[in-house]
Amino acid sequence: MFVPRSSNYKNKVEHSFARQEITQTLNMKIDDIAPGQVTLSMPYIKAYTQQHGFLHAGIIATGLDNACGYAAFSLMADEASVLTVEFKTNLLAPAKGQTFQFTAKVKKAGRTLTFVEAEAHAITGNNRKLIATMSATMMAIINRDDVQE
Amino acid sequence: MFVPRSSNYKNKVEHSFARQEITQTLNMKIDDIAPGQVTLSMPYIKAYTQQHGFLHAGIIATGLDNACGYAAFSLMADEASVLTVEFKTNLLAPAKGQTFQFTAKVKKAGRTLTFVEAEAHAITGNNRKLIATMSATMMAIINRDDVQE
Amino acid sequence: MFVPRSSNYKNKVEHSFARQEITQTLNMKIDDIAPGQVTLSMPYIKAYTQQHGFLHAGIIATGLDNACGYAAFSLMADEASVLTVEFKTNLLAPAKGQTFQFTAKVKKAGRTLTFVEAEAHAITGNNRKLIATMSATMMAIINRDDVQE
Amino acid sequence: MFVPRSSNYKNKVEHSFARQEITQTLNMKIDDIAPGQVTLSMPYIKAYTQQHGFLHAGIIATGLDNACGYAAFSLMADEASVLTVEFKTNLLAPAKGQTFQFTAKVKKAGRTLTFVEAEAHAITGNNRKLIATMSATMMAIINRDDVQE
Repeated sequence: MFVPRSSNYKNKVEHSFARQEITQTLNMKIDDIAPGQVTLSMPYIKAYTQQHGFLHAGIIATGLDNACGYAAFSLMADEASVLTVEFKTNLLAPAKGQTFQFTAKVKKAGRTLTFVEAEAHAITGNNRKLIATMSATMMAIINRDDVQE
Repeated sequence: MFVPRSSNYKNKVEHSFARQEITQTLNMKIDDIAPGQVTLSMPYIKAYTQQHGFLHAGIIATGLDNACGYAAFSLMADEASVLTVEFKTNLLAPAKGQTFQFTAKVKKAGRTLTFVEAEAHAITGNNRKLIATMSATMMAIINRDDVQE
Repeated sequence: MFVPRSSNYKNKVEHSFARQEITQTLNMKIDDIAPGQVTLSMPYIKAYTQQHGFLHAGIIATGLDNACGYAAFSLMADEASVLTVEFKTNLLAPAKGQTFQFTAKVKKAGRTLTFVEAEAHAITGNNRKLIATMSATMMAIINRDDVQE
Repeated sequence: MFVPRSSNYKNKVEHSFARQEITQTLNMKIDDIAPGQVTLSMPYIKAYTQQHGFLHAGIIATGLDNACGYAAFSLMADEASVLTVEFKTNLLAPAKGQTFQFTAKVKKAGRTLTFVEAEAHAITGNNRKLIATMSATMMAIINRDDVQE
């Protein structure tokens, strides 16, 4: 559906993802990269739970934001960095599960702004449950030294 | 401005906060609790940064969501638990700083739903900079075993 | 996908819709009602344009909010009224067109809260363009006299 | 607090506002313009009500969006137009009242994007009640013929 500006779009997503300390800390993986579409996943980790033992909403937001950012980044030119302008998340069910998967799809890719929607699912065995959504605006940044890559 | 339903509102916020694994993992502290108003803070931790070395937007959302949730919780009845319905965050500046502070204020406390607004500041020495906002809906849950407290 | 609590779900949506003064003022019509899914449309009306001659974002939000509200309402019990808790709209393209269509689908229907997503399209001849999205939380209200229906 | 780029900021807001067909249709007025801050108001009009006789949430969003847009526009350069990127609205109380007032304040003015927060109040005699909030991202557009002004 989308034609990436960069023929190198997979590599640049993987390279930027690997440079995030947080993805390693949370044991987050890339499951799939396509132009304008990225799926990430992470395991349940007790150290990131809230008072009821569910994964914290902020960690769900971390996965969703990352998926949205990299879905947008996959369509950007080689010289662009990506920054989050805003996101909104609805929490639909408690984040109970063995694994959490975050799937983001670009809805509109503009020169400066890209609009992305994402869903988080909790997976336990064969059960896959929608637990949260995100709608996000991402911005392409060019030639700003402090946010290179 | 708000009269808490529970005379015990400080203790119950502190008690629930202490039960969150994530607050200890992120070294998050309670700076202040008043009826309908909570301030939290956490240090910069490299393990939670994104690709440019800033604290990840999802961690900022974690702090903001926690502040919003406990601001709402401070006004709820003793038997109520709090769950996040939704939040929206605007990222206004990169999360660069030594310490991050999250201040939430209830705007409307209803029987079931509470609406809260919050701001995140990055602090470096004497410099204090607004880096993000949150607008959130919190829900009081009563008599649901799986989310007790 | 959803089983409506009311066998009368179509009639109650049509009846409530007809009682909105604004739908008549804006010449808004119901194109389709299914359980948890509603499509509405309205023509371009110059009286509701902003400074560039496009339909105002607030009117797009009116159509999206109505579609979301009635999609949620279609799944509620006969004695429930529906109120909007919150919505977020991203404007993806100028609202240029002859007709505007608003399609909403419930993603999660809870006892009290229902989460709905919607899209607005501008239609000009055979051209159909996505111009805006909404993510919204709707609330079922029971036994409150002032919001009956 | 903000220094407007244009010495002509009041005139340009008034001029653009006057060019909106919808402000005249809804009998909307400018109550106040300051750099980065705009207050608008409109009367209750039965033709814009929902099924319970309250002003429709989309009309509240229209007023809030207009206030946010013009607050952002007041800080933009003379050659810039303003477009809404996204907004989120929480509805806190039914829109019952004689008059509705919309007050927006810029929180961060960037080169391209401006972040604005707004509140809507319903006024009946001496009573003034907070009924809704908006958090919005506005974009400065330069040299695009179709959105001039």
